[in-house]
Amino acid sequence: MRKNKFVYLFNEGNSSMVNLLGGKGANLCEMTRLKLPVPKGFIISTEACLEYNEKKSLSDKMKNQVLKALKKIEKSSGKIFGNDENTLIVSVRSGARISMPGMLDTVLNLGLNDKAVEGLAKQFNPRFAYDCYRRFIQMYSNVVKNIDIEKFENQIDKIKKQNKIKLDSELTADNLKELIKEYKIIYKEKTGTDFPQDVFVQLFEAIQAVFRSWFNTRAVLYRRLNNIPDDWGTAVNVQSMVFGNLDENSGTGVAFTRNPSNGENKFYGEYLMGAQGEDVVAGIRTPLPIEKLKKQNKAIYEEFVGYAKLLEEHYKDMQDMEFTIQSGKLYMLQTRNGKRTPSASLKIAVDLVKEGKISDKTALLRLEPNKLNSILHSVLNNNELKNLTPVASGLPASPGGVSGKIAFSPAKAVEFNENKEKAILVRLETSPEDIEGMAVSEGILTARGGMTSHAAVVARGMGKVCVVGCNELKFTENGIKLNGHNFKEGDIISVDGITGNIYKGKVSSIPADLTGDFATIMQWVSKYQKTEVYANADTPNDARTAYELGAEGIGLCRTEHMFFEEDKIESMREMIIADTLTGREKALAKLLKYQKKDFLGIFKEMKGKPITIRLLDPPLHEFLPKSKPEIEQLATSLNKNVEEIEQLITKLSEVNPMLGHRGLRLAVTYPEIYKMQTRAIIEAGIEAEKKYSIKSEPEIMIPLTVSVEEFLYVKNIIKTTADEIIENAGSKMSYKIGTMIETPRAIILADELAKVADFFSFGTNDLTQMTYAFSRDDAEKFLNDYYLKNIFKTNPFEKVDVKGVGKLVAYAIKNAKNVKPNLKIGVCGEHGGEADSVEFFVKAKVSYVSCSPYRIPIARLASAIANLKNKN
Amino acid sequence: MRKNKFVYLFNEGNSSMVNLLGGKGANLCEMTRLKLPVPKGFIISTEACLEYNEKKSLSDKMKNQVLKALKKIEKSSGKIFGNDENTLIVSVRSGARISMPGMLDTVLNLGLNDKAVEGLAKQFNPRFAYDCYRRFIQMYSNVVKNIDIEKFENQIDKIKKQNKIKLDSELTADNLKELIKEYKIIYKEKTGTDFPQDVFVQLFEAIQAVFRSWFNTRAVLYRRLNNIPDDWGTAVNVQSMVFGNLDENSGTGVAFTRNPSNGENKFYGEYLMGAQGEDVVAGIRTPLPIEKLKKQNKAIYEEFVGYAKLLEEHYKDMQDMEFTIQSGKLYMLQTRNGKRTPSASLKIAVDLVKEGKISDKTALLRLEPNKLNSILHSVLNNNELKNLTPVASGLPASPGGVSGKIAFSPAKAVEFNENKEKAILVRLETSPEDIEGMAVSEGILTARGGMTSHAAVVARGMGKVCVVGCNELKFTENGIKLNGHNFKEGDIISVDGITGNIYKGKVSSIPADLTGDFATIMQWVSKYQKTEVYANADTPNDARTAYELGAEGIGLCRTEHMFFEEDKIESMREMIIADTLTGREKALAKLLKYQKKDFLGIFKEMKGKPITIRLLDPPLHEFLPKSKPEIEQLATSLNKNVEEIEQLITKLSEVNPMLGHRGLRLAVTYPEIYKMQTRAIIEAGIEAEKKYSIKSEPEIMIPLTVSVEEFLYVKNIIKTTADEIIENAGSKMSYKIGTMIETPRAIILADELAKVADFFSFGTNDLTQMTYAFSRDDAEKFLNDYYLKNIFKTNPFEKVDVKGVGKLVAYAIKNAKNVKPNLKIGVCGEHGGEADSVEFFVKAKVSYVSCSPYRIPIARLASAIANLKNKN
Repeated sequence: MRKNKFVYLFNEGNSSMVNLLGGKGANLCEMTRLKLPVPKGFIISTEACLEYNEKKSLSDKMKNQVLKALKKIEKSSGKIFGNDENTLIVSVRSGARISMPGMLDTVLNLGLNDKAVEGLAKQFNPRFAYDCYRRFIQMYSNVVKNIDIEKFENQIDKIKKQNKIKLDSELTADNLKELIKEYKIIYKEKTGTDFPQDVFVQLFEAIQAVFRSWFNTRAVLYRRLNNIPDDWGTAVNVQSMVFGNLDENSGTGVAFTRNPSNGENKFYGEYLMGAQGEDVVAGIRTPLPIEKLKKQNKAIYEEFVGYAKLLEEHYKDMQDMEFTIQSGKLYMLQTRNGKRTPSASLKIAVDLVKEGKISDKTALLRLEPNKLNSILHSVLNNNELKNLTPVASGLPASPGGVSGKIAFSPAKAVEFNENKEKAILVRLETSPEDIEGMAVSEGILTARGGMTSHAAVVARGMGKVCVVGCNELKFTENGIKLNGHNFKEGDIISVDGITGNIYKGKVSSIPADLTGDFATIMQWVSKYQKTEVYANADTPNDARTAYELGAEGIGLCRTEHMFFEEDKIESMREMIIADTLTGREKALAKLLKYQKKDFLGIFKEMKGKPITIRLLDPPLHEFLPKSKPEIEQLATSLNKNVEEIEQLITKLSEVNPMLGHRGLRLAVTYPEIYKMQTRAIIEAGIEAEKKYSIKSEPEIMIPLTVSVEEFLYVKNIIKTTADEIIENAGSKMSYKIGTMIETPRAIILADELAKVADFFSFGTNDLTQMTYAFSRDDAEKFLNDYYLKNIFKTNPFEKVDVKGVGKLVAYAIKNAKNVKPNLKIGVCGEHGGEADSVEFFVKAKVSYVSCSPYRIPIARLASAIANLKNKN
Repeated sequence: MRKNKFVYLFNEGNSSMVNLLGGKGANLCEMTRLKLPVPKGFIISTEACLEYNEKKSLSDKMKNQVLKALKKIEKSSGKIFGNDENTLIVSVRSGARISMPGMLDTVLNLGLNDKAVEGLAKQFNPRFAYDCYRRFIQMYSNVVKNIDIEKFENQIDKIKKQNKIKLDSELTADNLKELIKEYKIIYKEKTGTDFPQDVFVQLFEAIQAVFRSWFNTRAVLYRRLNNIPDDWGTAVNVQSMVFGNLDENSGTGVAFTRNPSNGENKFYGEYLMGAQGEDVVAGIRTPLPIEKLKKQNKAIYEEFVGYAKLLEEHYKDMQDMEFTIQSGKLYMLQTRNGKRTPSASLKIAVDLVKEGKISDKTALLRLEPNKLNSILHSVLNNNELKNLTPVASGLPASPGGVSGKIAFSPAKAVEFNENKEKAILVRLETSPEDIEGMAVSEGILTARGGMTSHAAVVARGMGKVCVVGCNELKFTENGIKLNGHNFKEGDIISVDGITGNIYKGKVSSIPADLTGDFATIMQWVSKYQKTEVYANADTPNDARTAYELGAEGIGLCRTEHMFFEEDKIESMREMIIADTLTGREKALAKLLKYQKKDFLGIFKEMKGKPITIRLLDPPLHEFLPKSKPEIEQLATSLNKNVEEIEQLITKLSEVNPMLGHRGLRLAVTYPEIYKMQTRAIIEAGIEAEKKYSIKSEPEIMIPLTVSVEEFLYVKNIIKTTADEIIENAGSKMSYKIGTMIETPRAIILADELAKVADFFSFGTNDLTQMTYAFSRDDAEKFLNDYYLKNIFKTNPFEKVDVKGVGKLVAYAIKNAKNVKPNLKIGVCGEHGGEADSVEFFVKAKVSYVSCSPYRIPIARLASAIANLKNKN
């Protein structure tokens, strides 16, 4: 329910009223309460913005409240709005719940007209007065009437040229008067009316313009990118102006209570005398470091430092403040929690806790896990990047930054690697056969694919820098073209997996540091994390990395990845090509020993932690060769003819492989495949106990289930095989058989499946694909149109779709837990490493989320934060 | 709750107790109640079967009830079970709720052992007694102990050879005695024990064997095919035997009260003297027509005819009866509603109503719409088929039967058609470009694809005979191979779309007859149908057929099908190839006039009935050429180079097109496409009113919606375009904008979508694909394994998956109607023409189902029946 009160004086609010008054307004109120020198003013609430947006006009009630508040300000300031002699000049500023820098509009110096400006000139000085007026006309015309700002800037340039003047500050009062004349002509030309002389018209027009700016395109896009709801609205702050440009004893500045780029506990800021705030932001003159103010005006400096300390103490966080000095008197115009770099956010958090100002819980709650990704990876040196223009850019699929030699084939990447040279694998797109080449490369760049394409998923799993979907990358006869720049194999490029930018040549990189502040924070995480974080890990190597990075188990071991290495793929192909059960079993026997060895290695590395192993999932055709030479080679080695193999490839090919013969469907047709995999798991488990005294209780996971009958059929194959091996070995090894929940039908049947499955794991990648009818291989192509047209705010493959997929997940959990309250339920989609998604899953009460090893610290942090949020 | 009573004497039951006593048992009770001469007996209930299946043994309680019932039969028959002098001989027969012919087991002549057989020999004659005993041993060994029946048959052959005998009836008592000896040796060899002499052991073993037969593989498969639940169970009928093989005055027969093959109201049957029932079924001797009995034994004949009339009068349906004559006395062994051919079912229904025996409602409720499909199509002559062996077979995708010349290309089909020759289009699979060729062919045969593949869907839409997924069809250099038989273009084959069989050469066909009985039944349908039946119709031609076949509207007009004709596809391709908005608009302008003309034609044909038009749905790459010559031709006509077009084809190609850039996603990227289509619809609507005074209120349908924002974005494009045209024309035409509900996400958001959409239409094809993660193009390949392994009973693309997809549909309807109780909701998947699915949708309270024009009568019948069922 909206309130009837739309307008609040600064002394009527406080910092807790941020939703209603916006961040800026709430803090102005709070500073007023703290008795800091804040110029008087009032706030028109965010609710007024929403009402305005519905009615497209300001209600009389709202206007009356504004006029009443204005009267109070007139009274306390001794000035009268629109008075010819002594006008009240105000700023009309936007102020949303959270800062949206540069997105919303503001009008300054409002309250002037042809007569009042003369009064102002008399009160102070003509140059100042005319400067205020021309600034006002310019800003009002632009913000309220959408007149291009360039038109006005051109006039300034013209007058400067005529008078042979270089700086704005050299413009005389007469120059400015002439400028005002020209400005008014422009206004009339563009609007068909004279510039409004009624200051109340000015005020209400400006208020409406600020409200409207909430819905301008750039603001909408900004909100999409930052996940800010459209229905928050912006407040409008109307405040008595103070003038940093009044005289030489006036000035303006911004400062932080701590260093926002490295977090150091040291006062940090800059200021400019004889200037309004915009002049600092615009960067026309170079501002001075705040320390200089100490020399220039010690009293003011110390007064300001005192306020700064008070504010940090009060807000218990690093503050970002704006101030203005008018004729030697200090005014505070804004304070807010300061933005900071990811590494500064860690240092400030740790320092504030050390200083006893906040608890570790509060410190955790202030961190944004999704923004900390870069901390975990070595990154390109920003100081060098500043001076470089990227040659192209793509989707930042796996974070970090690296330079290296371009390799067009996995073989070339191996060659560079052997010569101790860093390789960047550049491909149209990657396929499972490229895995070895990806493993030896430092970075991966592809022309196609989205954030969940093969390249992206595998690179994140390996912790490699990766940029995908680089549309500007074209393959030519001699190499590649990036936006018209030619590169050949061996040339050096730099790939930034955080921004998606590609640079020509070498850029140095700064290594990740997981010690120090980060380690302290992870200690807090251990205190507050409840929902566990497992890793997606397919090999003993992955498992080791995962264990070291804090994985509490393996949530997804994709057995098929084991089949892509040179020697294994051949047996796999032999199995697929075989046209008899005996032939398949012969080939599977060869694969058995490889799989068993891998499982044994994984059991060993994970030291008894839970391990979830998904049986073969992709369609068989993914393992078959694609190029003619490969097919010929396969034919030779299997003693078949080429045509036969080509026919089989055609026969196995599918129109929609994602909806094809994969997952447990393979085991319905070829039970022997899952039998072999079960044997490998169980035999490895028995050996792990004998050799290393590690008791593993592997969780064998059946993918793509859609029916109970189907699950039972396959479960029976696994159970019969496993029990026989265990019995014959005289072992007491135990194991579990569970299912992926990744099809809508499995969601609907969750209660029935819960009765027969030992555990569930949500495969949110596939579930998202089916729920949306989006193929992750194809969707990126059109999703961009969805962002541009503001239809989608986020990519559902990156951030779980709470409204759709999330509802299905919650439905399944509820029904399954009704049947089996202690059912172990995990999540193994890519969402497991994204903080907002982790928050959703923690709320949904899953037992664990699983993600790429290199995402584990972030996921654990997100899990701890979500747990703390749930408690609050 | 199961009862404590498991055993019922024939005089304890009646025909309404069919669920508990099985069909056979309930009718034996009913005949007993009607005082017909039924040999005494009792029934062990279906509940006993289920209990047996759980416990794997007969409970003492059950056994005691059996023994008690047996005592009563002994008493009334004056015989004693297992008595050496005067044994009671019984049959132990299965009897499920509905007949499952030949699927379940039966043991006859039970109650004999080495001593009792001697008593029987004395009572009657030795040959008869030994024949009964050897029959019993043979049947018991086979049914109870699973001993191969051949072992026994071989012994008979051996003895016949030794004695130079040809017929079983020539075996002497001594021969039979020797046979018994040999049989017992076989039994001992196979079981390790002697043949049981304890008749109670025989009885309880036989009862258990019959119970077990409910779960044998062939019964389970039969149930799958006929949608019979596993938990019905079978009853067991234990009945005093009467012997048609006792002497020359004995015999056995079966008869129908009306002719089961054409429905004629004329007594029909056959009998055999000196034989048991199996002998008639086995076909060893040729039985005589029932009329002969009138001459042979008028009294018996008339007695039987009297019973038959009584039974038909009593059951008010055509009866199928079994009888036995023992030494001149008639016994009734079974009566049931007789199976009949589809056309007989119509005649009998209409006749019974005319005779005043049943109401039209009852008549409708007895019809099985899914079985009546063949009536609506001209079919291959069964008399000729009897003598032919199919050369191959595939999936029966569209019913009817036809012979014609093989055409390997659409062009060839056109050529045959121009020469007035019937063409059968034979393809690996069909694509939209084949549509013209399909339209001029009489039948279509493809090697690939399932029941919802392109060929199948289009053929059903066109009413063409179609067989798809014929694995035995291989293309060779000179033609095709069907299971090894070579055919070249122009050779004649016959295609049976009801069975899926393919025959070499010509078979004559019998035309469909939609007049007479069928027309009468459709009159009843009009009385009782509530849920309407719309047609899927894409062209004015389709619309005319649909209207003539009784369509009450068009539920799905797929606008893309309009684009595939020669002249249109070129403009479509021009549009796709264009790289600017202007270029696309230019090409779209050409398409506009074609589309408008088509819509005008459809509006005219449908005479004001509702028309639902789905805007462009398939991905654009479907419209691009595939072969090099076509690409070259396109390049020439568009003045582009071949490479450019090939690159675009590659760029547009998708890994999973079903989950790709299609549906309203196209309009998000290219709003101009839907704008053109809207213009065509609205302009045609305005013209239809002017020219033909037809007021159309087209329902414009947006496909593949997954989000409200997306729907609103596209709805706005359509609405803005439509309203402007209507206003400019000064028209008052109205239209609706609704959405397909075909993705799981649209299901979840149904309430929100209901707020902004004028109507819903469930696209159950795509919804089934997404729910199962099954591609209809690929799933048939592995679904067969699912049937074979009894994991799936039906194809979810043919019969709607009530448990999964159905639950989603019901969820969406409930939530949508909460928001908008009068929302018009239809169904336009292929399920709209399948009777069981129609029944589901009628229950789910949709406004209409939509199906191929040729399925409309069946769908209307199904709708009427479902409505009557709902009322019952």
